[in-house]
Amino acid sequence: MKSIGVFDSGVGGLTVVKELMRQLPSENIVYFGDTARVPYGIKSRETVIRFSIENILFLLKQNVKLICVACNTVSSFALPVIKNHFRVPIVGVLSPGVREAVYTTQNKRIGIIGTKGTVKSKAYEIEIKQLDPAVKVTATACPLFVPFAEEGWTRGKVVTTVAKHYLKPLKDAGIDTLILGCTHYPLLKPVIKEVMGENVTLIDSAQQVAMEVKKILATEGELNKARSPNHQFYVSDNPEWFSGLAKRFLGKSLANVKRVNNV
Amino acid sequence: MKSIGVFDSGVGGLTVVKELMRQLPSENIVYFGDTARVPYGIKSRETVIRFSIENILFLLKQNVKLICVACNTVSSFALPVIKNHFRVPIVGVLSPGVREAVYTTQNKRIGIIGTKGTVKSKAYEIEIKQLDPAVKVTATACPLFVPFAEEGWTRGKVVTTVAKHYLKPLKDAGIDTLILGCTHYPLLKPVIKEVMGENVTLIDSAQQVAMEVKKILATEGELNKARSPNHQFYVSDNPEWFSGLAKRFLGKSLANVKRVNNV
Repeated sequence: MKSIGVFDSGVGGLTVVKELMRQLPSENIVYFGDTARVPYGIKSRETVIRFSIENILFLLKQNVKLICVACNTVSSFALPVIKNHFRVPIVGVLSPGVREAVYTTQNKRIGIIGTKGTVKSKAYEIEIKQLDPAVKVTATACPLFVPFAEEGWTRGKVVTTVAKHYLKPLKDAGIDTLILGCTHYPLLKPVIKEVMGENVTLIDSAQQVAMEVKKILATEGELNKARSPNHQFYVSDNPEWFSGLAKRFLGKSLANVKRVNNV
Repeated sequence: MKSIGVFDSGVGGLTVVKELMRQLPSENIVYFGDTARVPYGIKSRETVIRFSIENILFLLKQNVKLICVACNTVSSFALPVIKNHFRVPIVGVLSPGVREAVYTTQNKRIGIIGTKGTVKSKAYEIEIKQLDPAVKVTATACPLFVPFAEEGWTRGKVVTTVAKHYLKPLKDAGIDTLILGCTHYPLLKPVIKEVMGENVTLIDSAQQVAMEVKKILATEGELNKARSPNHQFYVSDNPEWFSGLAKRFLGKSLANVKRVNNV
C-alpha cells in the first residue's frame, strides 16, 4: 500500500503531519526532515530548489503516491518550478491557505507572515491577486518566530514584545485575516492572536492542506483503508533533536526516527 | 603570495576576520562561509565533521598557508578529528580562548557560553581541565543569541530578558571569567556584560586566535608584507544576505562576495 510522502526543511512540517493524521487516520505517511541543512527560510531560491529536488527523489524511492511539501519557503520558492517535473501529485501549503484566506476576508485586507524567503518570493501575494485582484496584501517576515518555537519560547514577555514589533505593519494595515505562512507559527498562535486581537482570523494552512490532500486522493481513487497505518520518519541529521521537538509540533512523541544521507 | 584561509558556517567568523585584519594588516585572506547549510550549532558531530572537511578542501584549492576555523562548533566537534589529516596548520578558536581564560581567572571558576553543539561536546571543559584540573567549569547553551545577533536585536528588553535567563546558572556558580564560545556573541557583549556584572571578565576568542595565527606564521617564516593585501569572500549561498550582515560583524561593508558550490 502506497504512502503519502511529506517533506520539510526540519521539524515544522510535523504540524502538517498532525493534521494529515487527524483527517486521514488510515493513511501511511513517510516524512523526511532535512535537518542537516535546516533552516531553508534564509536561503536563496536556487538553493531551496536544489535541496527540494533531492528531498523529492528520496521520497519517491519510498513508494509514495502523493508528495506534500510541508514547508512554506519551499512551496513559495520551488513548487512552481518543480511541480511539472514529476508524475506524482505534489501539494504545497500555499494555495490551500490562500483560498481559505480569500474566502474568509470581509474587508479585503489580508496579512501574511512567513520567513524572509517566503515574503521575498511574493508567492502568496501573486496567488491572492489571481483569485481576487481587489484584495490588499501586507506581508512581513518574522525571522525570530522559528527559533522561538523551536526553543519553546511560545509565551511570555519576550515573544509578545517581538510579536508586537513584527505585527505592527499588519495591524496598521487594518487586516481582518492573517495567514500563518510558516509551519512553525501555529505554536505561537495564542501570542499572535493576543497581539492581533479577536477580530482578525488566523489561517493555519495545515488544516487546509490536509483537506486538499484528501480531495486529490479521493479523486484519484487512491485513499487507503489501512487498519493500522504505518508512519515513518526520516531525517538527514540529529534524530534525537527531532524526536525531542516532535512532541511540541506533532502532539506526541516519536520513538523511531531514522537518519539517512539523502545527498 | 599565499593567503590565510578562514571558514565558518556562515557570517559569525567575520568577527575573527576583523581581528586578523587588525593584527595582520599585510596578510591576504580567503574566507568561506557555508551559508547554504548554516547554522552548524544544532547539528550532529558527524555532520559537522563532513561539512568541515568539504570546506577545508575548498580553501586548500585557494592556495592557503594556514587555515583558521572561525567557528566554535567546528573547533569543538571536528578539529581534534580533522587536524591531523591535513599538512597545512589548522587553528581553531577554542584553545586560544581557553589559555586566556585559565590565565585570567582568580577564583578558578570559568563559565562557557556557546551553541548546543559546542556545549554538548564538552571540548572547552576538557581543555580547561588539561591546563588546570582545579578549575570549576560551568557551561550553558544560548541558542537564541545567534538569531538575535543576525537580526540585530543586540540591546533592549527582549535580549536582556533572554540573557538573564540563559546566564543565571553562570551567575549562580560565581564565575569570574566567561568565555564567549561562539563567534556571534561579541555582538551581544554589552548586554552580557550588563547581566554578568563588572567583576566578570569576558573572553572574546577572536583576539586570541589572531595572536595565535600571527605566532604560527612568524615561527614558520610565513608572514607576508603585502602593500595592498587581497581579501576574498566566498559563500555557498546568498551573497547579498552575507554582505548585508558583514557591516555588523566585520565593521565594514563587503562589495564583492562570490557564491560557489563547494559540494
